[in-house]
Amino acid sequence: MTRSGSFITRTDLARLDAEDPLAFARDRFALPEGLIYLDGNSLGALPRAVLPAVQQTVSDQWGQGLIRSWNDAGWIDAPQRVGARIAALIGAAPDEVIAADSTSVNLFKALSAALRLRPGRSVILGEAGDFPTNTYISASAASLFARDFKGVETHDLMAQINEQVAVVVLTHVNYRTGRLHDMAALTQRAHQAGALILWDLCHTAGAMPCDLSANQVDFAVGCGYKYLNGGPGAPAFVYAARRHHAVLAHPLTGWLGHDAPFAFEKDYRPAQDLRRMIAGTPPVLGMQALEAALTAFDGIDLHALRAKSQALTEIFIALCEQELEGQGFALFSPRDPDQRGSQVSFTHQQAYPIMQALIARGVIGDVRAPDILRFGFAPLYLRHVDVWDAVAC
Amino acid sequence: MTRSGSFITRTDLARLDAEDPLAFARDRFALPEGLIYLDGNSLGALPRAVLPAVQQTVSDQWGQGLIRSWNDAGWIDAPQRVGARIAALIGAAPDEVIAADSTSVNLFKALSAALRLRPGRSVILGEAGDFPTNTYISASAASLFARDFKGVETHDLMAQINEQVAVVVLTHVNYRTGRLHDMAALTQRAHQAGALILWDLCHTAGAMPCDLSANQVDFAVGCGYKYLNGGPGAPAFVYAARRHHAVLAHPLTGWLGHDAPFAFEKDYRPAQDLRRMIAGTPPVLGMQALEAALTAFDGIDLHALRAKSQALTEIFIALCEQELEGQGFALFSPRDPDQRGSQVSFTHQQAYPIMQALIARGVIGDVRAPDILRFGFAPLYLRHVDVWDAVAC
Repeated sequence: MTRSGSFITRTDLARLDAEDPLAFARDRFALPEGLIYLDGNSLGALPRAVLPAVQQTVSDQWGQGLIRSWNDAGWIDAPQRVGARIAALIGAAPDEVIAADSTSVNLFKALSAALRLRPGRSVILGEAGDFPTNTYISASAASLFARDFKGVETHDLMAQINEQVAVVVLTHVNYRTGRLHDMAALTQRAHQAGALILWDLCHTAGAMPCDLSANQVDFAVGCGYKYLNGGPGAPAFVYAARRHHAVLAHPLTGWLGHDAPFAFEKDYRPAQDLRRMIAGTPPVLGMQALEAALTAFDGIDLHALRAKSQALTEIFIALCEQELEGQGFALFSPRDPDQRGSQVSFTHQQAYPIMQALIARGVIGDVRAPDILRFGFAPLYLRHVDVWDAVAC
Repeated sequence: MTRSGSFITRTDLARLDAEDPLAFARDRFALPEGLIYLDGNSLGALPRAVLPAVQQTVSDQWGQGLIRSWNDAGWIDAPQRVGARIAALIGAAPDEVIAADSTSVNLFKALSAALRLRPGRSVILGEAGDFPTNTYISASAASLFARDFKGVETHDLMAQINEQVAVVVLTHVNYRTGRLHDMAALTQRAHQAGALILWDLCHTAGAMPCDLSANQVDFAVGCGYKYLNGGPGAPAFVYAARRHHAVLAHPLTGWLGHDAPFAFEKDYRPAQDLRRMIAGTPPVLGMQALEAALTAFDGIDLHALRAKSQALTEIFIALCEQELEGQGFALFSPRDPDQRGSQVSFTHQQAYPIMQALIARGVIGDVRAPDILRFGFAPLYLRHVDVWDAVAC
């Protein structure tokens, strides 16, 4: 991308940064010098709070405290504690979210539980083009529990939610297009049809507000390593509405989901609360890193976060279209910012070499086959001028 | 426990330490001053290599490398790399072990795969009194795949392995008694009956040699945080004999188990190799910690390790029986060192307050309800004199 005259100037964007009520949050991250990171939708940047937390966990809690730290350092409660922090970002009650396992595994648990609550219905309804794990796990659960998985086109979703559907599984923000579903409308439609709904919030949590409680969402899952900045392979999370807790059942009946794990009882008796969604021993290093990372959201107004995210993506689209007209780029994300997550995708026949060239110039996005250039805008640590510098590089 | 005249003297034990061919390994660990840690069977001590590895992972690889580190720092291959290191400790080929998830989740995957290989057989056979996760997950898998789970008494195991059994699930070393099963005999018996066998190596890996290949074991699982010293909630591992790889199938069909995960294909197509046992994104911090921890085994002769472990437990039993006669302690572990893992359990009616008193004096073991005092002897970092000091404290 080349620099040229533009209707938006860098000075305009510097002014937006000066007025940005979230500008202070950038200092909470350790960002590499001279790099513009537009891939926080894949792996979030490093919050400064993480390294000291991890060092303390390793040296003091593990090294010195040893086994005693399960209680003394609160390791055993980390899944609930981290879950409660995430709950605040997705409009759930503190006891409705737990951190555990990976998104794939949590999806399996939540989907299994949902199917059990709708025994007479034959269909798991998903979206064609959803992130592969969602379709793979949905198809697997369908096969396991003698249901059918149907992945339908986006425009057909509302029409396909009918009385045969047991559960609707959807990613709120699509990983390729950045398209944002209407959570309220789809959840309401699912409930009208007597179905349950499970939202994948991988590209939502930490990027925008989201109100699971107000929408009476049944289940949700999401990862800890994108906009939540929990680090590579951070623990994922699972949400279940409190009204379902007492009847939740899934096949991963590991010992730490037991009501009294240290009683070592002969038979599985699930925890009274959402701990029943835990299977094995929690990954403490990842939990402590994620817990520290989430402090980067302290005092952040999620509506301001969304407003900044929309401004960043709007500016990026406007600048790209100004600068790159006629060069083979086509906007692949929704033009309406209210239908768009915190990412912008363009298609281009030479997507891969273009991204390689950008990375060589210090602008990191990524590519999704065959021809999609993907740029994520993490509003917690990106500046408005970064958008200008990325396009001008 | 009180100090008194004894047939074994501390000087005898100091001499054993001076002659110990594994004595050098203790320096590979950061052990708290003045503490005797006999709970490495629950959470292994901190290897010195871990902190720098974790710091580098957080600061440099994540903080500076960001998304590029999935390839540049080899994060994506960590499950195989760590698996290969563990394979060397359990007598498996490097490509037969992969690090992933928790033991509970791996057990579910391996058991699901095993059942699919024995469709006409109705029974999952386990041991009554096995670690709860094993019986809970076995019962869950039985219910899911329309089989029966039978947990039988130890002495009845051989007799109960018959033509109805699809898979035998056993923990090699029992978590309460420390009793060591005869892996060769039980595996052979299972195979004679046409059944498969799945060994849980949680209390085996890193404590003694074990030869999965020579015994033609079908499946195995184990945790990373006991004798492997990978840290709290470290990634677990799963082994499958190479002859089963091409037909392995389980319900946790996450995207990273796909043959080409970054092709984002519509349908699940499992990896050609054991990567098909991976579900979601690997927990990188935990993986890097475990990988660094495993370097503590570099150059360690596992037969020497077992010999030292047996010496430590023999001395502990002898000293306890010398010193504590008539005080209500009864040996709960097998007296024959060849039938014992790297732990010694005693029962006592006042087990809990006794352990609290020991911990207050700087000797850490643990208690398993109702009356079991459990002491683990990690031969990589314990000295012979530690045994004397623990009993004399």
